[in-house]
Amino acid sequence: MKLLRVGPQGAERPVVLGQDGTAFDLSGRTPDIDGAFLAGLDPAELARAVAAGELPVTDIAGERIGAPVVRPGKVVGIGLNYRDHAEEAGAAIPAEPVVFLKPSNTVVGPYDEVLIPRGGEKTDYEVELAIVIGRTARYLESEAEAVAVIAGYATVNDVTERAFQFERGGQWDKGKSAETFTPLGPWLVTPDEAGDPQRLELRLWVNGELRQDGHTAEMIFPVYEVVRYLSQFMVLEPGDVIVTGTPAGVTLGRPGTPFLRPNDVVELEVEGLGRQRQVLGKA
Amino acid sequence: MKLLRVGPQGAERPVVLGQDGTAFDLSGRTPDIDGAFLAGLDPAELARAVAAGELPVTDIAGERIGAPVVRPGKVVGIGLNYRDHAEEAGAAIPAEPVVFLKPSNTVVGPYDEVLIPRGGEKTDYEVELAIVIGRTARYLESEAEAVAVIAGYATVNDVTERAFQFERGGQWDKGKSAETFTPLGPWLVTPDEAGDPQRLELRLWVNGELRQDGHTAEMIFPVYEVVRYLSQFMVLEPGDVIVTGTPAGVTLGRPGTPFLRPNDVVELEVEGLGRQRQVLGKA
Repeated sequence: MKLLRVGPQGAERPVVLGQDGTAFDLSGRTPDIDGAFLAGLDPAELARAVAAGELPVTDIAGERIGAPVVRPGKVVGIGLNYRDHAEEAGAAIPAEPVVFLKPSNTVVGPYDEVLIPRGGEKTDYEVELAIVIGRTARYLESEAEAVAVIAGYATVNDVTERAFQFERGGQWDKGKSAETFTPLGPWLVTPDEAGDPQRLELRLWVNGELRQDGHTAEMIFPVYEVVRYLSQFMVLEPGDVIVTGTPAGVTLGRPGTPFLRPNDVVELEVEGLGRQRQVLGKA
Repeated sequence: MKLLRVGPQGAERPVVLGQDGTAFDLSGRTPDIDGAFLAGLDPAELARAVAAGELPVTDIAGERIGAPVVRPGKVVGIGLNYRDHAEEAGAAIPAEPVVFLKPSNTVVGPYDEVLIPRGGEKTDYEVELAIVIGRTARYLESEAEAVAVIAGYATVNDVTERAFQFERGGQWDKGKSAETFTPLGPWLVTPDEAGDPQRLELRLWVNGELRQDGHTAEMIFPVYEVVRYLSQFMVLEPGDVIVTGTPAGVTLGRPGTPFLRPNDVVELEVEGLGRQRQVLGKA
């Protein structure tokens, strides 16, 4: 089951894709794909309704695709979660997950323009697997409990301004927070369709050149463990998004490679979760 | 002008206090004190309506007081913003503001129970001046522009679990994110009534013992500069909350002093912005 939001920014409508790619309008069931909708989502029931022809077909050709969940309550990031990326970043392999936060208003659609912030000189890409939460999660005791709170998965670009992250004092959040810094989507893919989240290839290209080619099997802290772990430190809620870390190949780990510049084209995909494409602009 | 939210958690109603402390129901004007309401707020017009008897009186005696703004889009923290606190924390005086984020679902009312997280052994208090944003702020060019985006001020306790902040790897956010960790209020005080934000005393007591006694004049980065600065790194939106840092006196800076324990009583106030009282519990 693939869920998405289609339409102009701030006026998206909820859509579900059938197995053959036909788009069905979900507006009769929910005003938007938000935490409340995800908390009540039963993918099997929705698949049945689609198959039974209970939802109206909608034509989405040529329309903008938004992020597949509207303004998350929070966006949580996991840092250095791939061994090869920790090494290229010159960081130690973490003994437990490194956690940061991104403001929710950084989330944009998968094809929206990404803006290099004013004063930014080291804007970098990070292809990642995103987890979307579907049930409230508080002090989960096992990975089995973590499985039950996941609404689905999506492709995400955890865009980062390295100079703001590392050279301006203090915490990483400063380099993770600029507008447009979290392109999400195109779809929220439910777990039944996404399959094992540790069996997904992640790839990213800049101007057609393959820069990242990793695999979620290489995560230091796998998906269910990340969710269980985070729930010890914060209450996760339906609609929250977790960006689970990036494999090697970011510009930071390629000395001499220029960071992103206006008009650069970034393309990325996580296996089975869809492809993004962003053109860089300037704020 | 003092704005507040009164009623059970999740079912608060908006209220404005008159000069003599009489409470007036704002429900006829807005369903809640949220970003949309704050974006359109004209304190002078509201004061006129109150004085003209246009709003119904409401009895709030004995009712719970909630946080004065509903679920902020984000809560931004400034670290080490008082010289004496940086020294007690053993940290260098920052050359520019240290920025972190707290999840919005940490925000609770000023008298709500604060829960020591499971596994937490170093839960600490921090009395701070909170800024509530009233207009979208993006790349502000001056402190004068910053003044214009501030909806008001409030007392806040930036509760922090030091072991999670410093001893569990990585970023501070891990120690700032537990449920109940951001008691806010009792009121949002508009700038016309709050006066100069750099002329406010901050005090905090644990079980009746004065632990923090600071003054916003001692901020390294003052309020308007903090807002201007943050707007270079993120888009601030109406309803967002900024917690501006704490003066000396936290438990971290008092070797040998026990951290907060269940049944401890924390009281705190920022001059003119009202007093909080929390009893500690266990998650």
